[in-house]
Parts: sequence; structure tokens; C-alpha cells
Amino acid sequence: FPSQTRTGSCHLSKIPKIVNSKPEPIMTPASGVYDACKSTIPVNTTNSDTAVQEQILQCIASSNANSIDTFFLIYASSLVFFMQAGFAMLCAGSVQKKNVQNTMLKNLLDACGAALSFYAVGFAFAFGGSYEEENAGKTTFIGTSYFFLVGMDDVMFWMFQFAFAATSATIVAGTLAERCQMTAYLCYSLVLTGFVYPVVVHSVWSPQGFLSSNRDDPLWGCGFIDFAGSTVVHFTGGLTALVATYLLGPRRGRFYDFRGRLLDTPNPMPGHSAALQMLGAFVLWFGWYGFNTGSAISITGPDQNKIISIAAVNTTLAAASSCFSALAANYIIAERRTGEGEFSLKAAMNGCLSGLVAITGGCAVVEPWAAVIIGLFAGLIYLFSSSALIRLCIDDAVDAVPVHMSNGAFGSIAVGLFGSPTRLELAYGHSNHVGLLYSGDGILLGAQFCGVLFVLGWVTLLMFPFFCILNYFGWFRSDVLNEIAGLDASYHGARHVDVDGVDMELVAQLRSQPKNSRNRFSRSSAEPNLSTTNLDSSDVSM
Amino acid sequence: FPSQTRTGSCHLSKIPKIVNSKPEPIMTPASGVYDACKSTIPVNTTNSDTAVQEQILQCIASSNANSIDTFFLIYASSLVFFMQAGFAMLCAGSVQKKNVQNTMLKNLLDACGAALSFYAVGFAFAFGGSYEEENAGKTTFIGTSYFFLVGMDDVMFWMFQFAFAATSATIVAGTLAERCQMTAYLCYSLVLTGFVYPVVVHSVWSPQGFLSSNRDDPLWGCGFIDFAGSTVVHFTGGLTALVATYLLGPRRGRFYDFRGRLLDTPNPMPGHSAALQMLGAFVLWFGWYGFNTGSAISITGPDQNKIISIAAVNTTLAAASSCFSALAANYIIAERRTGEGEFSLKAAMNGCLSGLVAITGGCAVVEPWAAVIIGLFAGLIYLFSSSALIRLCIDDAVDAVPVHMSNGAFGSIAVGLFGSPTRLELAYGHSNHVGLLYSGDGILLGAQFCGVLFVLGWVTLLMFPFFCILNYFGWFRSDVLNEIAGLDASYHGARHVDVDGVDMELVAQLRSQPKNSRNRFSRSSAEPNLSTTNLDSSDVSM
Amino acid sequence: FPSQTRTGSCHLSKIPKIVNSKPEPIMTPASGVYDACKSTIPVNTTNSDTAVQEQILQCIASSNANSIDTFFLIYASSLVFFMQAGFAMLCAGSVQKKNVQNTMLKNLLDACGAALSFYAVGFAFAFGGSYEEENAGKTTFIGTSYFFLVGMDDVMFWMFQFAFAATSATIVAGTLAERCQMTAYLCYSLVLTGFVYPVVVHSVWSPQGFLSSNRDDPLWGCGFIDFAGSTVVHFTGGLTALVATYLLGPRRGRFYDFRGRLLDTPNPMPGHSAALQMLGAFVLWFGWYGFNTGSAISITGPDQNKIISIAAVNTTLAAASSCFSALAANYIIAERRTGEGEFSLKAAMNGCLSGLVAITGGCAVVEPWAAVIIGLFAGLIYLFSSSALIRLCIDDAVDAVPVHMSNGAFGSIAVGLFGSPTRLELAYGHSNHVGLLYSGDGILLGAQFCGVLFVLGWVTLLMFPFFCILNYFGWFRSDVLNEIAGLDASYHGARHVDVDGVDMELVAQLRSQPKNSRNRFSRSSAEPNLSTTNLDSSDVSM
Repeated sequence: FPSQTRTGSCHLSKIPKIVNSKPEPIMTPASGVYDACKSTIPVNTTNSDTAVQEQILQCIASSNANSIDTFFLIYASSLVFFMQAGFAMLCAGSVQKKNVQNTMLKNLLDACGAALSFYAVGFAFAFGGSYEEENAGKTTFIGTSYFFLVGMDDVMFWMFQFAFAATSATIVAGTLAERCQMTAYLCYSLVLTGFVYPVVVHSVWSPQGFLSSNRDDPLWGCGFIDFAGSTVVHFTGGLTALVATYLLGPRRGRFYDFRGRLLDTPNPMPGHSAALQMLGAFVLWFGWYGFNTGSAISITGPDQNKIISIAAVNTTLAAASSCFSALAANYIIAERRTGEGEFSLKAAMNGCLSGLVAITGGCAVVEPWAAVIIGLFAGLIYLFSSSALIRLCIDDAVDAVPVHMSNGAFGSIAVGLFGSPTRLELAYGHSNHVGLLYSGDGILLGAQFCGVLFVLGWVTLLMFPFFCILNYFGWFRSDVLNEIAGLDASYHGARHVDVDGVDMELVAQLRSQPKNSRNRFSRSSAEPNLSTTNLDSSDVSM
Repeated sequence: FPSQTRTGSCHLSKIPKIVNSKPEPIMTPASGVYDACKSTIPVNTTNSDTAVQEQILQCIASSNANSIDTFFLIYASSLVFFMQAGFAMLCAGSVQKKNVQNTMLKNLLDACGAALSFYAVGFAFAFGGSYEEENAGKTTFIGTSYFFLVGMDDVMFWMFQFAFAATSATIVAGTLAERCQMTAYLCYSLVLTGFVYPVVVHSVWSPQGFLSSNRDDPLWGCGFIDFAGSTVVHFTGGLTALVATYLLGPRRGRFYDFRGRLLDTPNPMPGHSAALQMLGAFVLWFGWYGFNTGSAISITGPDQNKIISIAAVNTTLAAASSCFSALAANYIIAERRTGEGEFSLKAAMNGCLSGLVAITGGCAVVEPWAAVIIGLFAGLIYLFSSSALIRLCIDDAVDAVPVHMSNGAFGSIAVGLFGSPTRLELAYGHSNHVGLLYSGDGILLGAQFCGVLFVLGWVTLLMFPFFCILNYFGWFRSDVLNEIAGLDASYHGARHVDVDGVDMELVAQLRSQPKNSRNRFSRSSAEPNLSTTNLDSSDVSM
Repeated sequence: FPSQTRTGSCHLSKIPKIVNSKPEPIMTPASGVYDACKSTIPVNTTNSDTAVQEQILQCIASSNANSIDTFFLIYASSLVFFMQAGFAMLCAGSVQKKNVQNTMLKNLLDACGAALSFYAVGFAFAFGGSYEEENAGKTTFIGTSYFFLVGMDDVMFWMFQFAFAATSATIVAGTLAERCQMTAYLCYSLVLTGFVYPVVVHSVWSPQGFLSSNRDDPLWGCGFIDFAGSTVVHFTGGLTALVATYLLGPRRGRFYDFRGRLLDTPNPMPGHSAALQMLGAFVLWFGWYGFNTGSAISITGPDQNKIISIAAVNTTLAAASSCFSALAANYIIAERRTGEGEFSLKAAMNGCLSGLVAITGGCAVVEPWAAVIIGLFAGLIYLFSSSALIRLCIDDAVDAVPVHMSNGAFGSIAVGLFGSPTRLELAYGHSNHVGLLYSGDGILLGAQFCGVLFVLGWVTLLMFPFFCILNYFGWFRSDVLNEIAGLDASYHGARHVDVDGVDMELVAQLRSQPKNSRNRFSRSSAEPNLSTTNLDSSDVSM
């Protein structure tokens, strides 16, 4: 049993710092930082005392700053990761009870899929080689190193970026709820987080990205400014959701009856738990503090704390004002239509989330008053988009498209309008072109449109064919019987739980059929075997 | 497309720190702090090397400390904000299913209302001008600058204070659940967070406040000590809840039957989900770690870490001991009354929250053993207050008054008893007057009573007339039919969700009536149109 | 009213840092750290300027590092504490509705019990005297100071360790759900957190522990390496759960019918809410980021940030891969058995948790690829253990034994296989013996087995007799009638809430009987009074 010598770093792990209870000038333990830094200076140095002191000082400053920044990123990453729980609860509350298990599993799988996919290739595509000196100033379409994190030293940055990728993927889960096959969903989330989303990130956030505002020579002297990802994360996710739901078609009974006739008024198909929805929204809001402040990546250095502070405050204000504008507008519309106003929890909640999405792009570069205005518009944009979707018979089970797509795009445009010179200088170090309202100069606004259009094109170009292929092979939409019986009973063997209002006889009948004889979804026609009394009966809860 | 030069701060945002994988003496990236500080020193300085070094050192120390403190405040703020989710879940679980949407919307609106109201005027009233040199030593009743955050530089402090204001407002939501109109609730939360609460904050926490212990000449040499706001936040919220519920009257069927006759035993009207209640309580406990530690505002500087550590530990211990005392006392009382003891989740959970409220005022200034004792009493005070309310026929749907009002006051009194000299010295820099049990000197205790009485007077003086006016104009209490049908169906258009046990025919009938013909609430008499078979039938779930 | 002089630390508390809006070289306020440090140097010192500067620098480095570390621990502690909410929701969702209140109360009480028990004696047994100089190098079985935190200065370390102890205790709650008496549960949690668990902690994590890898002369030159407690916390908790459920017996109707005959297929007794289960799992995953990163205790000092970063990344990857392996294996097994695959939310969710448990021991000492592999095995081990338990007719209501016990042990063994030389050197300062796959040297693997076997022996030795005694006196298992009626109605006076499918007549009858005449549980025989029509009827929901 040989005894060993151990270095300072060893002592620091797992050993708490106990200070003697006797009075001492200052706490002793963490002077480890000083000693560790001193030990890096060669002893037999010929430098003067002052030069040595300077080196130690530099080392200490950098060591403590490193600790703070790593800590800040794990804090932000954990909050952003927790948004998975928020999305899950929002979905759980918004679907019918017979589909809860299915929806929960999708929410879990996209987080796990994002982790593996982003670990293997996604991060490499997004940031590979971005920070190596030989690549400085180059423009590349995609990163090419750091696959499987090989050669990556600062892995906490991966952690933070993974949480973002997972957020982008999970936005889609709610929209497709209650009618999408599990395999299709899994494939989609791997493709999105492994390739489609990383390219967007590379273009916007990597210094080699052609849209990046962190380049030495950004596009039009300003670049596309998306501080925390209202376009990169939310518009990408929301747009994918729109493409997917368009191809997937609405839930049975949402806009058409079982014989394919358009309903006079769409069936709202309300979720089964307002409490879980609200919980989800609050968790998301909470997580957004990590999302928006964490996007500063570093909290050390002069003025970084101002950037982070304003991001947090603007996040709060936009959420609040957007909640009120959606609630009030919805109340007035309802009053005009029916003579009596209605306080809609759905409008307030989704309004709130819309404000959060809309402020994401500019949280650090607009002033608080602008955040309030952005929020006010975000609420209206949500309401308008939501009713437009219904008019187009596009079914979004949780209104993710109006919240994330419409307001994701709006959030980036808003930076072109409200981007403040002082804030842009602080956050990006350049303010050649600022918001239209400050300068009357539309170049930043133009760059913002550019960014949104690029993502629009890129995502549509890839995801549309992708979902078409899935659909063609019948991997996308659930069997019609499964959908009516509820996905939990059909796919997950649920028999006793969460299945109120499901016709168990139908499920039994379904299970007894051979798999291939079941009908696949077809958008235009009602399947003949659906015109049975059983399916028109009210206990199928549609 | 002009190329640009960029400063260091720009590089820090959005660029991760990648350390070369080659061995290096120490990580390089964040030396940005050193360089940034060095660049602030004029180059052609005539100072000696040592003096320059000193300036750089001072700058680095302050820059890193600033980063840590900002980070600490965003951490604490986000946790305190998350308490909104806790209150929402506690309320959701505690109300009947037919009122969940309504309750959720109130919880969301008070958070949003607090944000806008506190942004516009609340913060200005609370802290406006408090830290400007020309105001040092003055005593003012209310702040007069920083409206709409104009001129406010450290906006993270606003963020933290907003989260507190929102907490204060949301305490009331549960108490008034199931019978209060939405507009009344919204008005109330704007008034509370915009004016009533800020004046309390100014008096106790601003250096110009007449009760403040941070003044140069605090009241009676010690001032009113309320470290994290057991009086400022919880007593204010709880007292408002009491005033409001007294004027609003109990839920129909809680103490009186539909003909206005007192019931032999009050109808407990239990909530619909113990799981959500427990979730709410745990989320609150979790958030309390941000609430109590964050109240130190800064974590840098000698001994600040001790203040924060003891606050966290005391928070834990008080919650635990209070849970047991309420549970045990309730068990014994039940055993004496019915011959068989009962483990009451409600007693344990509210006991726990009572302990958290009671330790809030003194978390950093009492020793751990005192925290345990404070917890033990808090549990008993909760039980006593709760049964006193029932005896007075005052209806509190979530027991917020016993938890927040009674124990909020007790928490401040307890500081007058248990305030430890060492801890007071650490946290406030003065210990002229300490807890009665240490010194036998009742001056601190007197100051604590003063503080509680001031808030008692101020809040009652304002909120009592306010709610009276609301009531007079019929804006306060829901229509009786709405209440019986459930607020979700009445106000929020709920038809399919969360409405078990609601008589939908009644709702339809209600919707068909002209609005003004419906009866407003009147405390003393039963409305004649209520004595129908319909309302006495059991399926109205009362 | 004497005026007072106040020190710097006073100003720091409750006073926000307001920076003038005028441009300044650097933010001023937190220079308090510099001044405070300067003030500790005697003025009339004869030292040269440089020496003074050095002392100030040392002081600042240590003061800021102290602040960061304290903050890091409160962050980690609060997240670990929040895992209580995760376990509670997992349990709530996994039990039948009629037992929710009972399960919630147990979850609350073990947190509170752990706080008081760990405050009084647990922490003292675990770490008492561990860091005092006179004890350096000694080997002790148990700590003997710091009872009631007396003499303990760094109380935040207590906070963090309490959260771990509470986690260990709460693991058992789910396993015993729906049939265990409240008093027994309370006794058990006090004993576990007060004595059994602390001795394990002392042996593994205290520098005086015989297994500790932080000793100067660790066992076999490496010691037992359990970075964040896969054996210390999870195996201890899971093993206790196994012992307890073995003695407690399965829930009625799970494996045997009411006449004691073995069922052909076990009744799965699914929980009542998949949404709450999923919420619980996500909360646990979120909390795990505090659990695994916080176990580094300090984030300052060179390379500590690397340790923490890799811990976070590995945590993510193991959870993800384990989720997929459990889901896929379960799908394949179901397909082979029934001809049709099944996506099981339970498998995915528990797979995910299994990966988190398995990576806990080695999160900071294995490479990311190894984390993925560990996760893959963890999922399979979960599935295998879970079906083994069912074959042995051991009933675990939430599968805590397969998740925490099996994978807790596996997590420690995995360190012996995959422990990377670089990572071990960073985290522990010694890498004499590393993972078998790196070195072909099985000594670390041997030490890991040693550690697991020690805990296996210690916990079994104490908990088996303990539960036997409880059982002998009839304090352990609930009355059979109570179990059938649901514990909420029986013990908690639930009448209206959460009691779907409970025969209220049975409850009434039960309440009217004298307590002692009810039958106690007996494993082998069916009670005669159970063969009534009432109990065989389907509405008892079994």
C-alpha cells in the first residue's frame, strides 16, 4: 500500500472548506487559487518581483473568471434543460387524456435523441473548428471537427448548446400530438438536431458563419443579430412544426367530421388539464432566464453583467406585456363576436410564451420600454397567427406554430427596429447599424430579414421533402383506428390509466387485426370502415 | 461593407472559451478580465509600477466580484420567480376542478401585473433615489425616481425586487379562489405591487426608510430587522388576503347552506389533487432558497458567504421542524376529538410552509437551534390561526392567511427574541440591541413590533377601503350562479375540460340570461332563486 | 438613540450596487472586496510594498473564490433538494389515486426527517472532525463532533450533504407505496439518515474513512472512487428499499389473488398519471446536474471547471443512451413475446433514470464515450433487474430497486472498468490504478467491488433486523382493510378527493371497527374475512 503525494487540485474536490471558529483575518481555504497560480511561475526566474506578481495576478484573474463562467454555463444549461419539463407539461395538459403517455414519451425521446445526435455530429457541424486560429476570418457552411467531442476541451459549452438543440426539437412535439407515429417523431428529432439545426447555428453563431455578427467583417457591417435564438431556435422549431403538421393533416374530428365534411365550427379539442398547462408555461418562463441570460456565454469581463441584467429584465417585461395584449385582444374579439367577453387562459398563457419567444432575439440589445412594446405586438401576432391557422385548417395541438414560428421571426425583425446603439455596442462591440427607430437606417433591419429568410429557405428545403418521404412510406401518421382509440392504448399497452372516454372494445378489436390490414391516413377521403355507429358515438370524446 | 475593429467585450459574448488541448500552465481565455482592466489605466502614467499594479488589482477584484454578484442575483431571482409556479400548483390542487382555469389565470395575471406595475411605478416608489449620495441620511416616505427604470443602471436588482413583489401579490390568489371576479383580482394586484407594497419596502429596506436597519441612525439604534421579508412580503400579502376574504365572504356552501343557515360542521371543500398541492409546496421550498439567500443581495466581500450559508441552513431546519410540529399537534388534537389520530397532509404541508415564512425574517440572524424552535412554534401558530379563522367563518381556500400572515408577523417577532449578536453583527454591522433571550433587553423586540404594527396599519388602511369600493360597485364577488356552475364554465368558456360535477344545464341557462339580471353577492341573505331543486342536488358537488 | 458607525460588510447586505450612468472606467461598487482585504493588513507594517500587495492579492483571490464556492454549493444544494419534488411526482404518478395523499406525506416527511436527523447526529457521524488537523491521517469508523452543527463553521457544506441524505431516504418511499404504515416509514427515515447512511458517507467520503480516495494512503493506492455517490446514495437507498419490500410483501392483488393463489400474470397496477411520472423524471434529471456537478464541492482552482464540465456532459449522455437501450430492448422483447413491439414510457423513463444513477459514481472520471456505453448497459441492467424482481414476486411500486440499487452498484463497478487516467488525475490527484480497460490492472476494479460489498453488508446488517422488528410489532404493514380501501381514506380522512374507485361503504365499516380487531398483514395466508363478495368485486379497482 504505497503512500502517495497529492496535488492541490485533489484536496479541493470532495473536501469542504472548514474555517476555524477562532477569529482569523480572512478565510483561508480557497487561497488554493493563489498557491496554484504561484506554482505555475518558474522558481529560478530572473524577472523582477513586480513581473512575477503581474503573472500571478493575471493567472488568478483568469482562474476565478473561468470558474465563474463555467458555473454560469452549468446554471444556464440546467435551466434550459428544465424547459423540457415545461414543454412536456404544456403538451400533457393540452392533449386528451388518451394520448398522454404517447406525448410524454415523445418529449422524453427528443431530449435523449438530441443528446446523442448533437454529441455525435450536431455540435461538430455547428461549431467544429470555429475557434481555432487557422480558421479565423474564413467563411464556412458547416463545421468539420469535434465529432463525438473529440478534441473539444470546453465541454460545458457543448452542454449549453445541447440544451438549445433539444429545445428546438421539442417545440414540434406538441403540434404533432395525438396523431403522429413514434418512429417518425424519433427520426425527425435526430435529423433536426443532427443536421438541420446545426447548420443554422453555424451560419448565425459561429464566427465562420456567413450571417454571424461575431465575424470580423459581418454581413453589411452588422450581421444578423439573434442574441439568444428567436430565429435560430424558435423559428427553426416552429417552422418545422408547421411543415410537419401541414403534411400530417389535422386530428380526426378537428376540422372535418368522420365522413370528411368540413365542420361549421372547428372542434376545439381542449386539453385535459389546465393546471399542467400552466405549470408548463411557468417552467418555461423560469427556464427562459437561463436561455436568455446564458446566451451571453460569459458573465465575466467589464459590462458582461450589464448585458445579462438587461436580458433578464427584458425577458420579464416582454412576457408580461404580451400576456396582457393577447388576453385583452381576445376578450375584445370575443365580446364583439358573442356579446360577452371571455378571459381565456389559453390566450394569456400562449401570449406570455409569445412574448418570451419574441424577446429572445433582442433581449440584450433593446431597452426595457422596447421590450414592453415587443411584447404587446407579440401577443397580437400570436392571436392573429393562431386564427389564421384555424382558417387554413392546419391543426396545431398546442399552438406552437403561432408562438414559436410567428414570434420567432418577429423577434428578429424587432431587433432591426428597436436595436439600441448603446446595447448593441455593449453586447457586440459594434453599432454601425442599429434599429430603424434610432437611426432611420434600414440596413440592420435588412440583415435581420436576410437571416429569417435564410432559415425559412433552409428548413423548408430540407424538412418538406423529409416529411413527404416519411408520409409516402406510411411511417408518419398513426393508423386511423389507433388515433381514435387513443395512442396510449394502441401503442403503449395502456389499459387502466389515462384512458377515460376510450372505447375499449374498439381497442380490443384493433389489437386483434393484423397490422397491415389497417388503413393508413389519407388526407382527402374518409375511410369507409369509419362510418360505423361506434365511431360516431359520443363516447369517443370528439 | 466596411471591416471593423472590435473590442474585447464583444469577443466575450457568444464565443465559448476553447482551451488548446496542449498542456499549458493555466487556462488562457478569461484573462480578458486582466487585459480589460489594464486598458483602463492611462499608458503615459507617471505612477510607479506598484501603483499601477494596485489599480489593476482593484479593478480585477471589483470586476470579478461584480460578475459573481450579478450572477447570484439572477440565480436568486429566477428561483423566487419560480415560486409563482409553486403558488399556482398549490392553488390548482386546493380548488375544485371546476375552478382550476380561473385560478390558474389569476396566478399568471398577478405575475404579469406585478411586472408591469413594478416596472412603471412600484420600483420607483420603493427604491427611487435611495442610493444617490445627496439623499444619504434623509428619511423619506416614498421614492421618487427610476420610474420605468429610467436612470437605473443595475437593473438586475429590479429583477430581484420584482420577483418579491410578485410573491407578495400571489399570496392572495389562493385565499380568494373560487369566488372572486377576474377584474377585481387584476385591479388589486396592480394596486398592491404598484403602491401599497412598495411603500412597505421603502420603509423597511431602503436606507431612507424610517424603519430601516441599514440607516446610519436606525430606529432605536437597531431598526426593524426583516432580512428576507417575513413582514415585508408575507405579512403584507397575508394581511391583504385576510382583509379581502373578510369582505368577499366565504364560498357558498362552506359555512352556510343555500338558505343561509349555519352548517353544523363546515364543509371542508377539499381540493382536487393532493399531488399538485405537494408539488406546489416543494417548488415553494425550493424557491425559498433563492428568496432567503438572495436577500443578502451580494455574495462577495468577507463573511457574506457565512450570511448566505446560515440563511440556507436555517431555512431548511425551520421548514422541517414546523412540518413535524403541525403534523404532531394535529394528530393529537384529532385523537382527543375522535379517538383516532390522523396524519394530515394538509397540516404537514402548510406547517412546512409556515416554518419557511417564519424563518424568512431572521434566517441570517438566528442560530440553527433557534431556527428549529421558530419552526416548532410556527407549526402551532398555523394550526391555531387556521382553526380560529374557521371559528370566525372566514374562508381561506388555501390557508394562506394562517401561513403567511400569522407566521409572517411571528417571524419578525422571533427576531426580537432569538436575534444572535454574532449573526446580527455579520449581517447588519451593528448589534447594539439583540434578541431578548441573549440580552434581556427588549429594544430590538420593540422595534420588531413597531415594524409589524406599521405594516398592519398601512395595509389595512389602504386595502380595506379599496376592497369595499370594489364590493360596492359589484366588481368583487362573482355572480352566485357563476360560482355554483364553476368559474371555468362561466368565465372561460370551459365546456369539456376540468369540469367534472358541474351542471351544464345550469351553465347554459346562465349564459342565456342577460348579464345585469343576475344577482350580486350579498353576505347576509340567501338569494330566493337559489332555493331550487337544481341547486340543492348533490351533483353540484358541494 | 445613539448613532452608529458601520463596517463595510453591513453596506453590502441589502444595498444594491448602483453604478452612475456617467461613463466610468470600471464599475465601482464591489471594490468592497479590495478595501476589506486591505483593511486586514496592519497599517504600521514594515514590509515592503510588494509584500503588502501580495498579501492583499492572496486575500482577494481567496475571498472571491470563497464567494464562488459558497454560491456553487447553494446552487447545487437547491437543485438536489428539488429532486424531492421529482421523487414525489414520480411516486404520485405511479400509485393508484386512492393512495396519493399517503405517498405525498411520506415524501414530505422523509425530507423533513432527514433535515432534523442529519442536523442532530447524521452530519456529525459522517464528517465530525474530518477536517481538523489533529485527525489528519487517522482512520475512524464514525465522526464524533459537529452534533447539532456545534463548532461547524462552513454550514453550507451541511446543506449540501443534507440534500444528499434526503435523496437517499426518499428512494425508498416509492417502493413501499400503497401498503406501508406512516410511523414505520418515519422511523425508518430517521434511522437511515441519522446513522446508517452517515457511516457509509464517513467510510467513503471523509478523509478518515477506510475506503476514501481522499486519504493520504487510500486503500490499495487508489481507494474506492464514488464521485457523486452512485453507491453511497443510490445503492444505499435502493438496497434499503429491497430489504424493506421483501419483508413488507407485495401489494394485495399484485402477485396473489385474495385467496392467496398466485396469479397467472402479475397485475401491473399502473399508476394514475403518466404526466406526473414524466414530470418527476424530468425534475430528477434537472436536479442531477446539481447532484453530479456539486459533488466537486469547489469550482475554484485550476481544472475544477473541467471536472465539473465533464460531469455535466457525462450525466446528459448516460441518461440519453440508457433511455434508448431500455426502450429498444423492451420493444424487442415485447415483439418476440407478443408479435408486436411496444414503446413503453415506463421503460424509457426508468431507463433514463438508470443511466443517471449509473453515471453518478464516475461522472467526473470517465470520458464521454464511456458515459454512453455505461448508459447503454444501465438500461439493460434495469430491464433485467426489474423482471427478476417480478419473477421473485418482490413488489416495487416505482421500480426504485432496479433503478437505484442495481445501477448504483453497476455505476461503481463501471468506474473500475472505464476510469480514465487523465480524469482521475484531475479529480483525485492520483492515478496509480485506473480503469481495467485502460491499464489491464484490476486493482481499482477490486477496490470498487470492496466498496459496494461493504455497503451491501453494512446496510443489510442493520436494516434487515430493523424492519423485522417493525414487522414483528405490527408497525410496518398497513391493515389489510386499509390497504384495500386506500390509505388516503383510511389514514388521512380523505372523503372527496383522489379516491376514485374506492368502496366508501367499506371505508365506513372500517372506521367503525375498533382498531385492534383488524387483522395484521401476514405473508402466507389469506385472511378469512377477506373472502367476502365485497372484496372480490371489481370496483375495488384491483
